[in-house]
Amino acid sequence: MSLPLNPRFAATFPPPVMEARRWLEAATFSKDRPLINVSQAAPVDAPPPALCKVIAEAALTQPESHLYGPVLGLPELRAEVANQWSVAYGGDIRADEVAITSGCNQAFAATITTLAGEGDEVILPTPWYFNHKMWLDMQGVKTVPLPTGETLLPEPDQAAKLVTPRTRAIVLVTPNNPGGVEYPAALVRAYANLCRRNNIALIVDETYRDFDSRTGAPHDLFTDPDWQDTLIQLYSFSKAYRLTGHRVGAMVAAPSRLAEAEKFLDTVTICPNQLGQIAALWGMRNLGDWLAGERLEILDRRTAITEGFSVLTGWRLLGCGAYFAYVEHPFEMNSDVVARKLVEDAAVLLLPGTMFTPENNPAGKRQLRIAFANIDRAGIGALFDRLKSVAL
Amino acid sequence: MSLPLNPRFAATFPPPVMEARRWLEAATFSKDRPLINVSQAAPVDAPPPALCKVIAEAALTQPESHLYGPVLGLPELRAEVANQWSVAYGGDIRADEVAITSGCNQAFAATITTLAGEGDEVILPTPWYFNHKMWLDMQGVKTVPLPTGETLLPEPDQAAKLVTPRTRAIVLVTPNNPGGVEYPAALVRAYANLCRRNNIALIVDETYRDFDSRTGAPHDLFTDPDWQDTLIQLYSFSKAYRLTGHRVGAMVAAPSRLAEAEKFLDTVTICPNQLGQIAALWGMRNLGDWLAGERLEILDRRTAITEGFSVLTGWRLLGCGAYFAYVEHPFEMNSDVVARKLVEDAAVLLLPGTMFTPENNPAGKRQLRIAFANIDRAGIGALFDRLKSVAL
Repeated sequence: MSLPLNPRFAATFPPPVMEARRWLEAATFSKDRPLINVSQAAPVDAPPPALCKVIAEAALTQPESHLYGPVLGLPELRAEVANQWSVAYGGDIRADEVAITSGCNQAFAATITTLAGEGDEVILPTPWYFNHKMWLDMQGVKTVPLPTGETLLPEPDQAAKLVTPRTRAIVLVTPNNPGGVEYPAALVRAYANLCRRNNIALIVDETYRDFDSRTGAPHDLFTDPDWQDTLIQLYSFSKAYRLTGHRVGAMVAAPSRLAEAEKFLDTVTICPNQLGQIAALWGMRNLGDWLAGERLEILDRRTAITEGFSVLTGWRLLGCGAYFAYVEHPFEMNSDVVARKLVEDAAVLLLPGTMFTPENNPAGKRQLRIAFANIDRAGIGALFDRLKSVAL
Repeated sequence: MSLPLNPRFAATFPPPVMEARRWLEAATFSKDRPLINVSQAAPVDAPPPALCKVIAEAALTQPESHLYGPVLGLPELRAEVANQWSVAYGGDIRADEVAITSGCNQAFAATITTLAGEGDEVILPTPWYFNHKMWLDMQGVKTVPLPTGETLLPEPDQAAKLVTPRTRAIVLVTPNNPGGVEYPAALVRAYANLCRRNNIALIVDETYRDFDSRTGAPHDLFTDPDWQDTLIQLYSFSKAYRLTGHRVGAMVAAPSRLAEAEKFLDTVTICPNQLGQIAALWGMRNLGDWLAGERLEILDRRTAITEGFSVLTGWRLLGCGAYFAYVEHPFEMNSDVVARKLVEDAAVLLLPGTMFTPENNPAGKRQLRIAFANIDRAGIGALFDRLKSVAL
């Protein structure tokens, strides 16, 4: 007899990235055709050596780097985010409006749980980031999907029709995961207005902000003197400074909201780990030029992806930006079958659109996500060679 | 107008340790009478230099120490826990029955949330560990308090009367936080039987296991060939190896339970941070003798506490062990007032029993928790001098 299970867990799905990893267990790859892994949005190299050295030195010389810190993060890091954000977004953001979290997923979890409980609703544009959907499922919060169609841009008018008395928030991810599209500033502004009118939260996840192809602020929401009444912004240090293994993210919101999030964060992790925070702080202060170069490299890879798909018969590139290409495949089968076959037949691991859409959504069955930031131009060339030659 | 708040958050309390830290902001301390901080159960020194060096070297030489790892933790660490536990508890524990978490609080949060949802019940002996209560509150799970009386030992017969069709788990913390008492093996066994009969989970939090005054296994639950049907054990690497700032804990349970916990852990942190796991693994393999010495030091401090209270007029020592003394104060005022006055009048920071008990519980008003492991014999002497001289 097995122990009780919270029925919400049976109602959600297992972590897609872990599931995709398991597909690899059954496969074998030859030396002349190694696996091309474009499944997870993650740097594959260590941070720059100078940053590794900072972490090592902190471990050796700063005893406090091994001890508990404040639940909401190191004061210096909170202040640095506030200062750099105030400049970047042309707004007024204070240190007590910034919390550091153990990764951006935790920032999302904390945000949602302070806003919504059993039976409440949150609007997610589809295709969505699957971890957002999983967390809502497990918290008993109803996900209201907002289909984006071919542009991958969510229509504010359509969103307005989905707002009910139980709606607590609308979530935007820009640049988008999985869609790759960069939401125009005017679109983000329209959502802020919609949320303000309805007194619901606008959660803007800017995990991929540092790889936006546009220069300047990607939206003007922080220029509102009362942005805290509507906006909760989420950020990750993982992609910018290659710190995925350190788990450092941020949440920017009203201090009263952070006081509630503190209850959640305290019971879920007590505090973000210290070495990761020290690394993020040093990165923010010293790696601006390096990060600018990283961005140009990713933008170059994006160009390679756009060019490649423009000549690949049968495939359509729906969205492309930051770490992702979101594409329509030409095969007469569902994308989850295509994805598994691509592992075997082409030694390519990517994720099917079915992982990013509700079960009843036909679009997901024709779509695939390619996390191209992981591979350089040569790798992208090899990827296209394999996609060209595959016949399913 | 402020954004919606999940009413469960208004219904719980802010993190007690953070609240106690805020009391210090209003206080000043002189050089000849510095603060004695016995509020938080945390080592105040860095890990041994050899362990700091291992962390530093990993940061410099292991690129994967900066990158995502598996949601349930490093396979080597899971296997090491399984092996050492099998020996220590005389049972059969496999690597796939161990998950690594971002601290033991996260192991608790993951465990509870896989077991219980809105309206379900979990039995917590009182005084409880306040973070357990907060998490249950925020998840909409009803906490059913089980008062322990003067012995601080929860009576299984009394617990049996609290079991209802909505009960999902009973939580034991041994050695206990805040009570300090070590639960006899027979008591823990009685709870396993009770839980098995009712098909509910027995969660045993052994965060302070390494400082138990008893030698050998503290209970025999893992000797049951089907322990997974009832037991979920939680552990922390923070105290043993002074890794509080790294956030590494563990959850030992049936693989099917860990598959559900994986959904929670993935969305809440993606994976435990890598350097902390590398440190924990090295600690387990190399710091056995050092940890044995640490334990003797803590046991010596415990003796100093026991001796001191035996001659301190008006005070009663209710429980003492691992990191904690749980005491009754002699003053004609509530413990939360006493605790704040002790900051001002005696430069001592400790936590009031009201933080560990339900609001309507009169016992908590007479009780205080002293996390004595933070201070050496000289510090304990100074603590008693101050308690002796204080007149409230």
